Amino acid sequence: MASTPDVLISECGPRDGLQSIDVVMATDDKRRWIDALYAAGLREIEVCSFVPPRLMPQMADAAEVVRHAVRLPGLQVLALVPNLRGAESALEAGAHRITIPVSASEAHSLANVRKTRAQMVEEVARIVELRNARAPHAGIEANISVAFGCSIQGAVPEDDVIELAQQLAAAGAGETGLSDTTGYGNPAQTRRLFTRLHEMLGPKAGAAHMHNTRGLGLANCLAAYEAGVRTFDSSLGGLGGCPYAPGASGNVVTEDLVFMFEAMGVSTGIDLSKLEAARDVMTRALPGVPVYGMVHEAGLPKGFVQGAARV
Amino acid sequence: MASTPDVLISECGPRDGLQSIDVVMATDDKRRWIDALYAAGLREIEVCSFVPPRLMPQMADAAEVVRHAVRLPGLQVLALVPNLRGAESALEAGAHRITIPVSASEAHSLANVRKTRAQMVEEVARIVELRNARAPHAGIEANISVAFGCSIQGAVPEDDVIELAQQLAAAGAGETGLSDTTGYGNPAQTRRLFTRLHEMLGPKAGAAHMHNTRGLGLANCLAAYEAGVRTFDSSLGGLGGCPYAPGASGNVVTEDLVFMFEAMGVSTGIDLSKLEAARDVMTRALPGVPVYGMVHEAGLPKGFVQGAARV
Repeated sequence: MASTPDVLISECGPRDGLQSIDVVMATDDKRRWIDALYAAGLREIEVCSFVPPRLMPQMADAAEVVRHAVRLPGLQVLALVPNLRGAESALEAGAHRITIPVSASEAHSLANVRKTRAQMVEEVARIVELRNARAPHAGIEANISVAFGCSIQGAVPEDDVIELAQQLAAAGAGETGLSDTTGYGNPAQTRRLFTRLHEMLGPKAGAAHMHNTRGLGLANCLAAYEAGVRTFDSSLGGLGGCPYAPGASGNVVTEDLVFMFEAMGVSTGIDLSKLEAARDVMTRALPGVPVYGMVHEAGLPKGFVQGAARV
Repeated sequence: MASTPDVLISECGPRDGLQSIDVVMATDDKRRWIDALYAAGLREIEVCSFVPPRLMPQMADAAEVVRHAVRLPGLQVLALVPNLRGAESALEAGAHRITIPVSASEAHSLANVRKTRAQMVEEVARIVELRNARAPHAGIEANISVAFGCSIQGAVPEDDVIELAQQLAAAGAGETGLSDTTGYGNPAQTRRLFTRLHEMLGPKAGAAHMHNTRGLGLANCLAAYEAGVRTFDSSLGGLGGCPYAPGASGNVVTEDLVFMFEAMGVSTGIDLSKLEAARDVMTRALPGVPVYGMVHEAGLPKGFVQGAARV
């Protein structure tokens, strides 16, 4: 697969997934999992978050994981940070890009990081300064959480989301995507919001991070694709994203998302059978943890040849 | 909800759903279930199939079920028939519309009804003659099965599907929809096929009957909607449609489909809370039978008001 894929699938399982479960995965298993994702063709992986280990022991080895991942040629290594202190550690470890979640609802922002939205925008500006001083080649994403609705506040006005995106760009964020943290989004809203985001930010408009909590994850990704989005966050086996109940995965399942795009003739650069192998590596390291995936359950269609739809 | 809804949701659970499980539902339970669906706002229900009771004891009370359903004012009562004999019984019982499945693949046609596609087109013509003679006001749908791929033949050429649609219209079918019997369809294909179907058949282009076997059911319905489809088959709790494995429902889940459209501001005429009540009626009558539904699992978004998106 030599040519540039049509879409970029950004795997967030090692961060978002592991953060959502109690099990602490061994560092060696994380390395094997990231290697298997890379072998399947993933070229962007959010590998960890830099947060206090006493709050999140699953991420205590964040720096070690980053240092491993950056050795894989051509892989963009992302690390989530909630604040300046996390950013310092992430840049020191050598992450190529740091991602900062900023809530679209004041209530969620206060509950999640004990800061207002305005304070978070200031924090982003401070992180940009730090980056400029210490690691000028590193990228900074500020992604908007609960952009499609908030489980505390309820509906989130679309104008709030777009205004926040503008503030984040002004603060120096290189890219801003929209996250359906709660699985509240629908395709019409997804299309409207990403269309406005592109109008506002141009090439700084970032990824669609959709959840499948109410079954609309892939439909929302399709709507985002039609609105011009070309980067999609998802997680292998749908790990993470705060599932509410059995069967209701949180994150969009990487395998299903890749299958959808590949079946449509939209190239992802990812090999479906090697992705299945990466799933095995992950599930062996997480015995008893529920994982999802409809394509995994049902298998590929008879006679399905990856890439055939593009010929 | 006085005005005409934007889309028509055609419930196929009492036929497709019950046919796919071994349990035989009591006739009284079927009546209660159909009444609850009607109370939720459903105005088209495929209530049964007319097939030999020794082959399908679940449908032995088909005539009784039809005679009950046709008493509900404004409800379109559909019955599936595989052949002329079934059509005779369905029309005699008073079904408003009969639906005849015709396979797009020769292999599936032979396996399913032991007739070639050409023989099925002839059977449709005979059923049209019968209808003209005995029940001129009854409608006839001939819907194309495995239109998106076949688990025996593999890929199904799109030209085969469109050619068959043309033959069915020529045979006198009033409407022809496309069914993703195997859950092989993808949004790009769905859009292409329904666009061609509309070009070919105009107002005789029928419903999208999509399956969720590989998780793409709602994305495919969205693509079909964008291609101009306004009637969608689905089943309460995703019952039926030959699920392959736990978690992999077959039919698109009515509750999730209605939620998607209503959240988008596309009216369905269906009340989501009464639909949940209909689900209760169904599940009580089918103890131990697995049912699906992401919206059921996760609940509606906080502050979600049905109809608000249309204001």
